[in-house]
Amino acid sequence: MNEGQMTDGKRRVGVVGAGQLARMMEQAAIPLDIELVLLAADAHDGAAQVVPEVIVGSPDDPAALRQLAERVDVLTFDHELVDPETLAALEADGHQVWPSSATMALAQNKRRQRAELGAAGFPIPAFANVESVADIVTFAETHGWPVVVKASRGGYDGRGVWIVRDADQAKAVWDDAQAHGTVLLVEEFLPLERELAVIVARNPSGETAVYPAIETVQRDGVCNELKIPLLGDEAHAAEAERIAREIATTIGAVGILAVEFFVSRGTLLVNELAPRPHNSGHWTIEGAQTSQFEQHLRAVLDLPLGATGLNGAAVATINVLGPQDGSDPRDRLADALRLPGAHVHFYGKGARPGRKLGHVTVVGDDLNEAFARAQDAASVLQGESR
Amino acid sequence: MNEGQMTDGKRRVGVVGAGQLARMMEQAAIPLDIELVLLAADAHDGAAQVVPEVIVGSPDDPAALRQLAERVDVLTFDHELVDPETLAALEADGHQVWPSSATMALAQNKRRQRAELGAAGFPIPAFANVESVADIVTFAETHGWPVVVKASRGGYDGRGVWIVRDADQAKAVWDDAQAHGTVLLVEEFLPLERELAVIVARNPSGETAVYPAIETVQRDGVCNELKIPLLGDEAHAAEAERIAREIATTIGAVGILAVEFFVSRGTLLVNELAPRPHNSGHWTIEGAQTSQFEQHLRAVLDLPLGATGLNGAAVATINVLGPQDGSDPRDRLADALRLPGAHVHFYGKGARPGRKLGHVTVVGDDLNEAFARAQDAASVLQGESR
Repeated sequence: MNEGQMTDGKRRVGVVGAGQLARMMEQAAIPLDIELVLLAADAHDGAAQVVPEVIVGSPDDPAALRQLAERVDVLTFDHELVDPETLAALEADGHQVWPSSATMALAQNKRRQRAELGAAGFPIPAFANVESVADIVTFAETHGWPVVVKASRGGYDGRGVWIVRDADQAKAVWDDAQAHGTVLLVEEFLPLERELAVIVARNPSGETAVYPAIETVQRDGVCNELKIPLLGDEAHAAEAERIAREIATTIGAVGILAVEFFVSRGTLLVNELAPRPHNSGHWTIEGAQTSQFEQHLRAVLDLPLGATGLNGAAVATINVLGPQDGSDPRDRLADALRLPGAHVHFYGKGARPGRKLGHVTVVGDDLNEAFARAQDAASVLQGESR
Repeated sequence: MNEGQMTDGKRRVGVVGAGQLARMMEQAAIPLDIELVLLAADAHDGAAQVVPEVIVGSPDDPAALRQLAERVDVLTFDHELVDPETLAALEADGHQVWPSSATMALAQNKRRQRAELGAAGFPIPAFANVESVADIVTFAETHGWPVVVKASRGGYDGRGVWIVRDADQAKAVWDDAQAHGTVLLVEEFLPLERELAVIVARNPSGETAVYPAIETVQRDGVCNELKIPLLGDEAHAAEAERIAREIATTIGAVGILAVEFFVSRGTLLVNELAPRPHNSGHWTIEGAQTSQFEQHLRAVLDLPLGATGLNGAAVATINVLGPQDGSDPRDRLADALRLPGAHVHFYGKGARPGRKLGHVTVVGDDLNEAFARAQDAASVLQGESR
């Protein structure tokens, strides 16, 4: 469909980026008769395969972003790597952009996240901006070695993070960052008891909805497993849910906001914000009364938010990664579907070793059983014998 | 995407027709990375709005059907009004067509349905083919007036059915049918205690899966309400589920087969077959472990079938019809989403009075409460004060 064929009665949402998050948004958009329009870097991106109206262009191209904004009621995002100044210019011209340019700027800048959340009274790790190698050493003299040095912008899933054990390592990291023009901050090295994540939604009218906190288990720096409900740390879970809701309101977030937390020395600390549907919320598609993707669309369109309770006693979600032999999990779909209750989600991506190609969710009465079944299905898809 | 860009690893299913059934199939196709290709009569049809690859053409055009078949792994249907001979020619050329041309022929011909199901020992109403007005009168002399005269092909939702009370009415119906070239059959007029429907799925390997029987409540000849589970006639429900599974196996159905039943004078009788996802199965999207749309895709691709149990204690589904004042229910979406647990499905159709525009499903612990909430949401969408 081109814009000349726009049908009355439909809401139109533009999505910058066409990866799996936009793809899962489309699944949620169909029943609500919301039309997505994508700005895809490549016409074969995961979401571009399933959405009829696609603009092929770069998220760095202001003209492409404007073209998208002019076709839709609201602009939103599959990823946060979009220039906030370009978005601010669109807002100034009356376009709806959610999350706002201000939220996108905050999400892209770890220094500002730490500074603003700390100033607002939210619990955060000790940190300092790094303008010289001496700043790292001085911080370490106060807080002890090792310290954690981070890129302020662009790091995720364990990339852009360095554990620094002494002044020599500090100099090496600093020199490398300088060479790449990377802005750094330094934080205390925290003994992690666990990591939590909370998905919160907020609409422009100020309504909020919070999903149950989940524990994110990192393996090789990537979170591949979700178990819901979180068992064994209910007090921190409840506190994390409260803080996530308050952060969403404080920063004026609109859409889904994922808030990641550390629990260290018995204390809950805010780690990172991601203003979009999040890996740690994929369980909600079958596991919650409203999926995070439907919730995101409802929020950015200022529709009332949906209920966030569980659809069963327990939910388990496990990622499907590209097998080392290069084989394609889609070729083993039949074997996975033989396992009762396995909900398979593929992202429309070609198989490459280690690439995140999809996930499996199982909803059940017992968490261990649901987890075992989800793991079985993921293993089958990955061609592993169990 | 055009066929030259076909991506490895994907399964491709061609759908003849682009109405709401194909639209809901697309929602189920996305997570399994199944690509749908549509043959749409109109580029603006409900499913054509959400599927990138659409051939615009008539289901009566053999060349268009062949073009579709050549682009996909399997051909299936949004409606049963496709010429079985054209489909048989495609099968003869090695194309996968599910349901088969034979099943489609059976579904289109009420005379053959009655004759074949009766010959196979399934319980059916007394009937006779009508080749003259005398056949109606003779049948009535045996079974008593009134009798029910039906068009053998094309009737559904109460159209193409006449209650005939005497020889004069019989002549009027006969003359009218002759004028329209309509082939007729006559059946006994049954006092209906209730009507049941069973959705069964079967794949080419012979695996079957049956959803719980539901009661279909007709108002003005249209079924607008579903309540699951069926309460108060468990024996007939179980018998209907058993018969539906046997019919699917007997006729070699592939995909979803909906079997409609009468309960009359304490006896269960098979009424009609529809070899496709069915109105009476829309509750399965949120209410069952596997939606009928996913199940249909799994079946026609010869993938293992999914579990058919309920996701909650109770499920209620109510249609959303176009209000008499011509207003658009999509304009009242916000009010409906304010009701907790209301899952709204729009079919991408413009509002016209009485037109089926969507449905609402509520899953809950209590059937009466779920039904009341679904009814509230449908009423809100229809602009009715309650």
